[in-house]
Amino acid sequence: MINKDITVRFRDIDSMGHVNNAVFFTYFEEGRKEFVGSLFNIVEPGDYSFILASISCDFLRPVKLGNSITLQLWVGDIGQKSFDLEYSLIDKGDESIVYAKGRSVQVFFDYEKNKTVTIPKYFLEKILGLRKRS
Amino acid sequence: MINKDITVRFRDIDSMGHVNNAVFFTYFEEGRKEFVGSLFNIVEPGDYSFILASISCDFLRPVKLGNSITLQLWVGDIGQKSFDLEYSLIDKGDESIVYAKGRSVQVFFDYEKNKTVTIPKYFLEKILGLRKRS
Amino acid sequence: MINKDITVRFRDIDSMGHVNNAVFFTYFEEGRKEFVGSLFNIVEPGDYSFILASISCDFLRPVKLGNSITLQLWVGDIGQKSFDLEYSLIDKGDESIVYAKGRSVQVFFDYEKNKTVTIPKYFLEKILGLRKRS
Amino acid sequence: MINKDITVRFRDIDSMGHVNNAVFFTYFEEGRKEFVGSLFNIVEPGDYSFILASISCDFLRPVKLGNSITLQLWVGDIGQKSFDLEYSLIDKGDESIVYAKGRSVQVFFDYEKNKTVTIPKYFLEKILGLRKRS
Repeated sequence: MINKDITVRFRDIDSMGHVNNAVFFTYFEEGRKEFVGSLFNIVEPGDYSFILASISCDFLRPVKLGNSITLQLWVGDIGQKSFDLEYSLIDKGDESIVYAKGRSVQVFFDYEKNKTVTIPKYFLEKILGLRKRS
Repeated sequence: MINKDITVRFRDIDSMGHVNNAVFFTYFEEGRKEFVGSLFNIVEPGDYSFILASISCDFLRPVKLGNSITLQLWVGDIGQKSFDLEYSLIDKGDESIVYAKGRSVQVFFDYEKNKTVTIPKYFLEKILGLRKRS
Repeated sequence: MINKDITVRFRDIDSMGHVNNAVFFTYFEEGRKEFVGSLFNIVEPGDYSFILASISCDFLRPVKLGNSITLQLWVGDIGQKSFDLEYSLIDKGDESIVYAKGRSVQVFFDYEKNKTVTIPKYFLEKILGLRKRS
Repeated sequence: MINKDITVRFRDIDSMGHVNNAVFFTYFEEGRKEFVGSLFNIVEPGDYSFILASISCDFLRPVKLGNSITLQLWVGDIGQKSFDLEYSLIDKGDESIVYAKGRSVQVFFDYEKNKTVTIPKYFLEKILGLRKRS
């Protein structure tokens, strides 16, 4: 599991007084940044070899400016060409407070051949350690 | 069905050269703004009487800066306390080009009583006309 | 002068209930996008040959979600290697209502040589027509 | 002086591959958030008693995704009804690397009377300690 503390910015808050729904996906993206950075040492996003096919979020509690939050990220289901990531946005001080849960599907893609491809073996081996414990 | 043209801003594009995934949810939000504005004449978002419970997006094609896009919005399933909205982000000039599809669940909420409530009748009657034709 | 209508998005509004200060610079950027697009037919931002050296904004009135706004853009002072752009964010229906005024300095830059360069003649000729009338 | 570390988000980067110009103002805003939070214990932004009248930024070096940055904030000139804040965005590891410098003017405002007012004494006393050393 990857843990990434998130700083809620003033700009993240919308006129309802809590973090805007679209911003949760930016938080999830910070998790993916950490994922490719810590596992594969990739900083330049153009070097990602997978594309985001779909993403979803369940909003459980509003996040406010003063909240201290942590994003948790796991690897979910793994297919031949795609893999899932699962997200949980929790309170930094109390893991039982869950603000949101999310899931995304990533597909491996060969930009030169312009088609989906099988997940490379080196990649598979790395991400197995991030699978959610049942 | 609600149709809303969206102007792709330079700021919407990320370092991959196309509209960032989180921004699709801002486009969907523009659809909801149009939805409450055109149906219920609500401009101030604090006057919305429902909350966003979940939202998802399937990314079918990348959107680039030069693309002219239109967001289509329908009412999907309707429950006792909640209703779905469905989104389709299409090319303004060619409806067969679909960039993304989305869905969100809205729940009616009584902020004073702090609990979910039944969808008001006046609301139901208004949104029935926006249901997707099968 | 370039006129560009701006749609105020729900996401542009912050918790104070009006357009966030940083978003005004995104509106100005939309003006620059129109500037390079209409004058030089440039869509891909990587093809811009100048860089933004500085920018400022005076906030005169808050912009709210329901406001219809237009961005006006002129060319200001022109130097040997740099030129100014001036911005005025006005009400679409009443030009006398000015929400904000801004100014930016753009410097011509040769990315291969990594140094500032003289403004090309073809560029100068094009932008002269956008100078503010005194 | 206030020091605030800033995490560069993937979403902050634009299609040019570095932090978008408007985002620098969001970084400055994080400095103001820290300013009102640490000095006056204010978390809710609606409790700010001043408004942003103008802001500017000089862009000295591009900020990239991998950069570790710190925002420095000082109090600049102080008038009867307004005060300046000055910003410097530096490299966290090497203070001599300055990415951007900024300045903003804040005006005290009485929302009930809808007019500018003199800076309260308690406020003045607090901010004097944050003045830039010459």
